[in-house]
Amino acid sequence: MSSIKVGSEMHELGKRLFPINRSLTGAGVRETLSILKEELPALEVLSVPSGTQVFDWVVPNEWTIHDAYVLNSQGERVIDFQANNLHVVGYSVPIKETFSREELFKKLYTLPEQPDAIPYITSYYSENWGFCTSENHKNTLPDDTYEVVIDSELKPGCLNYAELIIPGESDKEVFISTYICHPSMANNELSGPLVTTYIAKWLMQQDSLKYTYRIVFIPETIGSVVYLSKHHEHLKNNVVAGFNVTCIGDDKTYSYLPSRTGNTLSDKAATHTLRHLYPDYKSYSWLDRGSDERQYCAPGIDLPIATIMRSKYGEYPEYHTSLDDLTFVTPSGLEGGYIALRNAIYIVEKDFIPKMTVLCEPQLGKRGLYPNTSSKDTKSKVAAMMDMISYCDGSMSLLEIANKIDQPFSKLYPICEQFIEAGLIEIFKEK
Amino acid sequence: MSSIKVGSEMHELGKRLFPINRSLTGAGVRETLSILKEELPALEVLSVPSGTQVFDWVVPNEWTIHDAYVLNSQGERVIDFQANNLHVVGYSVPIKETFSREELFKKLYTLPEQPDAIPYITSYYSENWGFCTSENHKNTLPDDTYEVVIDSELKPGCLNYAELIIPGESDKEVFISTYICHPSMANNELSGPLVTTYIAKWLMQQDSLKYTYRIVFIPETIGSVVYLSKHHEHLKNNVVAGFNVTCIGDDKTYSYLPSRTGNTLSDKAATHTLRHLYPDYKSYSWLDRGSDERQYCAPGIDLPIATIMRSKYGEYPEYHTSLDDLTFVTPSGLEGGYIALRNAIYIVEKDFIPKMTVLCEPQLGKRGLYPNTSSKDTKSKVAAMMDMISYCDGSMSLLEIANKIDQPFSKLYPICEQFIEAGLIEIFKEK
Amino acid sequence: MSSIKVGSEMHELGKRLFPINRSLTGAGVRETLSILKEELPALEVLSVPSGTQVFDWVVPNEWTIHDAYVLNSQGERVIDFQANNLHVVGYSVPIKETFSREELFKKLYTLPEQPDAIPYITSYYSENWGFCTSENHKNTLPDDTYEVVIDSELKPGCLNYAELIIPGESDKEVFISTYICHPSMANNELSGPLVTTYIAKWLMQQDSLKYTYRIVFIPETIGSVVYLSKHHEHLKNNVVAGFNVTCIGDDKTYSYLPSRTGNTLSDKAATHTLRHLYPDYKSYSWLDRGSDERQYCAPGIDLPIATIMRSKYGEYPEYHTSLDDLTFVTPSGLEGGYIALRNAIYIVEKDFIPKMTVLCEPQLGKRGLYPNTSSKDTKSKVAAMMDMISYCDGSMSLLEIANKIDQPFSKLYPICEQFIEAGLIEIFKEK
Repeated sequence: MSSIKVGSEMHELGKRLFPINRSLTGAGVRETLSILKEELPALEVLSVPSGTQVFDWVVPNEWTIHDAYVLNSQGERVIDFQANNLHVVGYSVPIKETFSREELFKKLYTLPEQPDAIPYITSYYSENWGFCTSENHKNTLPDDTYEVVIDSELKPGCLNYAELIIPGESDKEVFISTYICHPSMANNELSGPLVTTYIAKWLMQQDSLKYTYRIVFIPETIGSVVYLSKHHEHLKNNVVAGFNVTCIGDDKTYSYLPSRTGNTLSDKAATHTLRHLYPDYKSYSWLDRGSDERQYCAPGIDLPIATIMRSKYGEYPEYHTSLDDLTFVTPSGLEGGYIALRNAIYIVEKDFIPKMTVLCEPQLGKRGLYPNTSSKDTKSKVAAMMDMISYCDGSMSLLEIANKIDQPFSKLYPICEQFIEAGLIEIFKEK
Repeated sequence: MSSIKVGSEMHELGKRLFPINRSLTGAGVRETLSILKEELPALEVLSVPSGTQVFDWVVPNEWTIHDAYVLNSQGERVIDFQANNLHVVGYSVPIKETFSREELFKKLYTLPEQPDAIPYITSYYSENWGFCTSENHKNTLPDDTYEVVIDSELKPGCLNYAELIIPGESDKEVFISTYICHPSMANNELSGPLVTTYIAKWLMQQDSLKYTYRIVFIPETIGSVVYLSKHHEHLKNNVVAGFNVTCIGDDKTYSYLPSRTGNTLSDKAATHTLRHLYPDYKSYSWLDRGSDERQYCAPGIDLPIATIMRSKYGEYPEYHTSLDDLTFVTPSGLEGGYIALRNAIYIVEKDFIPKMTVLCEPQLGKRGLYPNTSSKDTKSKVAAMMDMISYCDGSMSLLEIANKIDQPFSKLYPICEQFIEAGLIEIFKEK
Repeated sequence: MSSIKVGSEMHELGKRLFPINRSLTGAGVRETLSILKEELPALEVLSVPSGTQVFDWVVPNEWTIHDAYVLNSQGERVIDFQANNLHVVGYSVPIKETFSREELFKKLYTLPEQPDAIPYITSYYSENWGFCTSENHKNTLPDDTYEVVIDSELKPGCLNYAELIIPGESDKEVFISTYICHPSMANNELSGPLVTTYIAKWLMQQDSLKYTYRIVFIPETIGSVVYLSKHHEHLKNNVVAGFNVTCIGDDKTYSYLPSRTGNTLSDKAATHTLRHLYPDYKSYSWLDRGSDERQYCAPGIDLPIATIMRSKYGEYPEYHTSLDDLTFVTPSGLEGGYIALRNAIYIVEKDFIPKMTVLCEPQLGKRGLYPNTSSKDTKSKVAAMMDMISYCDGSMSLLEIANKIDQPFSKLYPICEQFIEAGLIEIFKEK
């Protein structure tokens, strides 16, 4: 499970994906998925036509944007979509018209409290148009007449997403979802597809997997509604755990957002991981939700989806601005997020109910299960070992035992494997 | 559910009832019930003969008092029952005898630490007599001979109580009990019958009621034992929630006393109400009990009866003295108690298990369920709405959801009604 | 249940047992058991041959030691097993050989941080030999040649233990275990067999017992494994509660070590007892275990065994040294431990589920159940009585009620007996 250079590799891939103008639909999503397919050839790209009814929603029209800019009276591009795709409000309808400065400013969004940042704005479900720029830049625009040009199309097309199935021994599934619908921003969202891609690579490198892994790259909200409308029965019957992957690439903190019930295997794996990796991690409540868990955990859907993040969406100043870029998201930040998520998935994959095969404490010396050397470290290992086996009565999973004795699962599992080999522990029942 | 002037109306009615010399039995109880019947014509007044065995108890003789006083050697009434009915120990047997000051003082009860207050004393179950006065007044009585006259009768008669049934759609009942056995004191007890009377009026004004409401006015302890001896099987099978109404008219605080188990619907409705109405409310334990919940929640009776109070009996200095009068109990104090109790009953009446009819989050915009204007207030309303529907999975009642998302039930219920109208929520199961 | 002089009697018996050189096996154990049999004639002494397979273990060879000493070049005994049996490492194999001071020191164990104390060392499961002495004494040994003599035998024999069955009305059993395998140390271990002996005497003095009591004196660890290998099915089916008795004779504190699950009747009786006896008692976790509960509570054995101690093994400086002697263990220390354990056993023996036979509160006055005099003390007794009966609904045991109303079981049980006599409470169901 070595992760050497994984952080840098993810960051490099991020540089390729960053400039693409993703949105809910359109060429940017397709280009993104095609690059991800280079990394994961088994990835299958799918589409759903605009207008399809999906539960209470309808798949929107496809948005295409060729160019967009604001010209001053000298014909200079004072705002230019080519320079930064955040400059145009997402899903802007076409326009070509001349405005006074005052009129232009009514359609120009800035963040006065972050004067260097271009905000990210969309208008998916009501027809509109607009430009975004930094407060500082806006203040340089003189009294003038401005020609506004948005060369876009909003018409029936399709919504794209992609799916990767990694088969395991069981039909039971682990579900991993991430989204690919934001233009040039790095923590929310590029870190999600980057870490998910490398988690998929790691899973495919394993000799064998207990569970089948279902990994999807979708546009947020409408994409998860689309996916659920096709697969919710299957998912409800088969998914044992899962994670929504987002905001997992900066260096500031670690965060956890629970599933709706908060007590699924995913929640237990996530909180166990973070408690041992970064005890000061920030724990949010279901009431702080805001991403695809809103659909995955909705009443009647009820999937066990938890979220491990670094800085949570909405909680860091760079969120949804041009400052959320590949300096905010770093190789080490991505690697930390990757390791945390991978460890939670490792727990899901490996957890089982251990049961001692002998009565009373076993004699470990004759089996070479005692460390040969004696040090503070080996004493603590022996204590963990004896504490662990004292709970192997077939009523608790190894993860539950790890929490009970306050030891990391990743330390206990290899010890448990030695005991299985020695015939002292058996698998009581697949979880 | 407007309560304008309800406080003043209750206080006015209190002025009429205050001077009556109530006791466990006798003319005072009958006069009180007859005035309440003017307010609630459907009220049925009932009686049980003295000597009737009721579980482990026997209905006592009826007490009638015509006059009582202490004359000094000049023939002046130095203590006079006509001036304040607390001056005579309740259930005093007749006497007409002359005593020295020293002898008189042995039968004269005062409160040295509250020298202005006349204490309230009774001797229901052992034959006795006595007078009560203020410490200050006692100290004015000179060395003299005193003629003591109590013109009372204690002989077989009956015990009176009253019952009001307000029918609802269901045979399941909400039980409301209050007591009418104390002479001139206002928080304990007049506030109880006053608020109960106006709760009954409010219930009778409703277009329809889910539950049947059973409201009783009884003498404390022996009255609840009498009532239970007649109806306990019926009550045990039908009562879903209930409240004992007492000490609910002063302005000082709000208090909660749980049912024996502490986790009934009544308890949940009471604590939810008080947490949102007055977060600093005082929460007592079952071990602090002292009124009819002692019978209603007794082993084998097991009714779900909780108590919402303002200042709890035994916990305020005016309790069981002449200072517990209609200056201590105020229109605003009564109105606050009325609103708290009414809100708890409203929760009991309205609570149900909501279940979403669509999968994934619904699109609220197209149904006009989003507020048209956007402000801090509407944002909070939308958040509450989305949090609420995220839990409408048929496993929790609306009250449980309200607690989960920390919103008042009274704010969520109207939103829930809109969702029912829009076909987005259905009633999963009557509670 | 008078315990006058019990502390002194236990301490006197301790003086007789203290000098004996107990070990896992051998003459010292037999001599100890034979003295205990003088106190408890019904005690049955049993044996198991060396080499017997017991679960994952094998009964070790029997160790006999005749003499052991270190001679200096003048032929003087500078270390002498006759002076203190801690001077020889337990289970030392025979040796007769001459060493330099440097060589001797490699086999000489001391405690540099407790320079007056001789440490207690054993080597049960790997063949070895050695001497123990105080750091101060070691420092007096000059450069010299030393003749080391250990006149011991380690060869097939047997392991001894003893069992006492005190029959009760029920086949269900209370199991009490203590160990007799340590040489001259008083808290760990003599206090265990001393208190257990006097608990057995107290049980045999009772007119009748609800439960059958099974009391064993065994060598630690291997003895409990031996005993379980013979009886675990019977114990698992019959034992309702039990205690491991150890470290129960000093004056410093009281301690509690839970069973593995922590919620057995034994745990409840122990914690209730200590909370009322010594609220500052030290509560350990299962992770702090270290005595025979490791076997009794092992997965698949699962006996309800908790431990009440004074200063816990491993937690006091005198532990496993010559300083753990009969000045550290005192008559009052033993008596305190005896009373705590006896009270916990009393709770186990007496607890039952009480149920009121009348509905509503009973009238206690007519039955003389109210105290005749009124004082702060009687008020508190009446409150405890009324609180108690308010919970006698057949759903909770008296111990659970005692915890609920925060009253000592030993205060409630006699009141409960009065109510049973008066016909107001019945035994709902044997626990």
